[in-house]
Amino acid sequence: PESKLPSLGTTIFSQMSALAQQYQAINLSQGFPDFDGPRYLQERLAHHVSQGANQYAPMTGVQPLREAIADKTAELYGHKPDANGDITVTAGATEALYAAITALVRSGDEVICFDPSYDSYAPAVTLAGGVMKRIALQPPGFKVDWQQFASLLSERTRLVILNTPHNPSASVWLKNDFAALWEAIAEQEIYVLSDEVYEHICFAAEGHASVLAHPQLRQRAVAVSSFGKTFHMTGWKVGYCIAPAAISAEIRKVHQYLTFAVNTPAQLAIADMLRAEPEHYRELPEFYRARRDRFIQALANSRLEILPCEGTYFLLADYSAISDLDDVSFCQWLTKEVGVAAIPLSVFCADAFPHKLIRLCFAKQEATLDAAAERLCQL
Amino acid sequence: PESKLPSLGTTIFSQMSALAQQYQAINLSQGFPDFDGPRYLQERLAHHVSQGANQYAPMTGVQPLREAIADKTAELYGHKPDANGDITVTAGATEALYAAITALVRSGDEVICFDPSYDSYAPAVTLAGGVMKRIALQPPGFKVDWQQFASLLSERTRLVILNTPHNPSASVWLKNDFAALWEAIAEQEIYVLSDEVYEHICFAAEGHASVLAHPQLRQRAVAVSSFGKTFHMTGWKVGYCIAPAAISAEIRKVHQYLTFAVNTPAQLAIADMLRAEPEHYRELPEFYRARRDRFIQALANSRLEILPCEGTYFLLADYSAISDLDDVSFCQWLTKEVGVAAIPLSVFCADAFPHKLIRLCFAKQEATLDAAAERLCQL
Ligand SMILES: CSCCC(=O)C(=O)O
Ligand SMILES: CSCCC(=O)C(=O)O
Repeated sequence: PESKLPSLGTTIFSQMSALAQQYQAINLSQGFPDFDGPRYLQERLAHHVSQGANQYAPMTGVQPLREAIADKTAELYGHKPDANGDITVTAGATEALYAAITALVRSGDEVICFDPSYDSYAPAVTLAGGVMKRIALQPPGFKVDWQQFASLLSERTRLVILNTPHNPSASVWLKNDFAALWEAIAEQEIYVLSDEVYEHICFAAEGHASVLAHPQLRQRAVAVSSFGKTFHMTGWKVGYCIAPAAISAEIRKVHQYLTFAVNTPAQLAIADMLRAEPEHYRELPEFYRARRDRFIQALANSRLEILPCEGTYFLLADYSAISDLDDVSFCQWLTKEVGVAAIPLSVFCADAFPHKLIRLCFAKQEATLDAAAERLCQL
Repeated sequence: PESKLPSLGTTIFSQMSALAQQYQAINLSQGFPDFDGPRYLQERLAHHVSQGANQYAPMTGVQPLREAIADKTAELYGHKPDANGDITVTAGATEALYAAITALVRSGDEVICFDPSYDSYAPAVTLAGGVMKRIALQPPGFKVDWQQFASLLSERTRLVILNTPHNPSASVWLKNDFAALWEAIAEQEIYVLSDEVYEHICFAAEGHASVLAHPQLRQRAVAVSSFGKTFHMTGWKVGYCIAPAAISAEIRKVHQYLTFAVNTPAQLAIADMLRAEPEHYRELPEFYRARRDRFIQALANSRLEILPCEGTYFLLADYSAISDLDDVSFCQWLTKEVGVAAIPLSVFCADAFPHKLIRLCFAKQEATLDAAAERLCQL
């Protein structure tokens, strides 16, 4: 059949993980831990399964999970969403992003995003008939120029998609970025989709700045998060979004026909985990900061130039002292010849991205990071 | 925000299950078992979780599951799909349906479906910009008039959506229905979406007729199935679709941005289950036939008229000897006053459906069915 997404191939994550496997390379490409999640979480899953919690969950998510999310959000961002009206549990953050875009973007609407940007946003916008307007951010800071942003606004602007902590750049938005965003869009009916799946992996001194902490923005915002990232269980596929009830109602209309509901025992287990061991997410920044610092230390003698990393479990490295190859070719070479798989930055950008940058995932055991660093130091 | 699905409310399944809970009625509305799935399946889930199979599955599904599906399909329908190219594991059959519709239906395309029809088809078609063309089938047989079907075809016809065994009518397509379908559409580039989530709950003498058994149709068809139905685990949310590689490639482009992948340990557990206990699905028709017959027997003294049931775990009952209420009001009354929740048939029809029919789910323990029948016999 004629393709509705003709320019689209398999995601870079699937491609690179397959290549890593083929060449038995150390896989620092696709973002997932090579260590396991909390034992308690696993035990609670087995418990709920054996207790017969195996039928459909409510379409919006099981009540104990929505309540635990509401309490965690209140603790962290000083705003308590309504567990019934505002929170929707989804099949991973990916489904939340897709459902929000589908619910909010109409044919001909314009959507502003910041490149480099996660690869799922654009196809969802395209399928909804929307038009992407991209602002290309530049390394090393990947900071938004708010005048440039203002110049992109039009009558057709419907949605702004942002991501903080930011995959792949590892930069973060600060409170003043949200203030600037609000100033720019306050007068128009523009919605905000804030992809915060790394909310618990933020190293900034002021902590994670959530759109939910901004009293005006949150009235127009959808905040998306992911338990896969928070609990080292990317394969469980449980995420959620938080939005005012009127927006949530529209997202749920889509969600109920996209997937209807999410794995019941996994939801119940995560609810138990949030209640029993909140220190897990509270201590996550330190957990990942230690890994980040160890990896940077181990790369100190390499010819890679490491960019600042304020959040996520990704590091950017500039390889221009090593090779003239473009980033896609360099990543293929690195996987095949050096035995380390990474992600090229240009695949996250619609326009040419004339930098020699690769993304390395440090959600790995110390031995994995050390082994990868040793190989990279030989370049 | 302005709604993109303005006429849409919460699904009847969520509504009726909530009402059933509020009035503590016996819930024969939303289709799910009130008994548990196989112990072995549960043990395998706990096993894979404890072994660390908790990170992203491949986008298309884990290899052992796709291979087990290929083998099961070959056994049952005499056609072995390619485990790599043709099979995609999805977050329940709901996601497979949504992804297939989104991949195949372009703006302005016409989609033929048969009313009563499952409630997720139309919203997915609407969001894709397609136009629903509905053929209203009539009780008790709900048979397609192939002349009427032919008269609905146009140059813009793109997709035919069918469902066998059929929810909610409990009727089934036979081989000759598929032959008639092929005759009608052979000359045009029209695709077929065959919702076969109840493939293992078919009571017809010739067995389940799958679109995959038809050598020509299957080259243009997407067959959808659901492990939730097959293994009594509706809350696990693992389904799949089978289509030729070129169609699957387009479905996967959507799937990879809808959910990306499906719960890893659940996929591995289901793969183990399919290999270890194939008798589970082979014996499922007998398992449900016994329940169906017991329930019909128990209702023999009621004033409900039970329609023929050839498949699914649903029965239709005509209540015109009992009440003049329309079916929605009757179901509300039944839940509140009689303590039995059922689904009104008219909600599955776009046009007026001038019959007094309700749908009763018999995927219930014998005690549940007996108790419900006792109440219904008092009407
Ligand atoms: C959905 S697979 C990709 C995981 C991820 O978020 C990443 O590597 O950026
Ligand atoms: C997705 S909830 C509805 C379950 C079902 O298929 C039905 O009751 O018809």
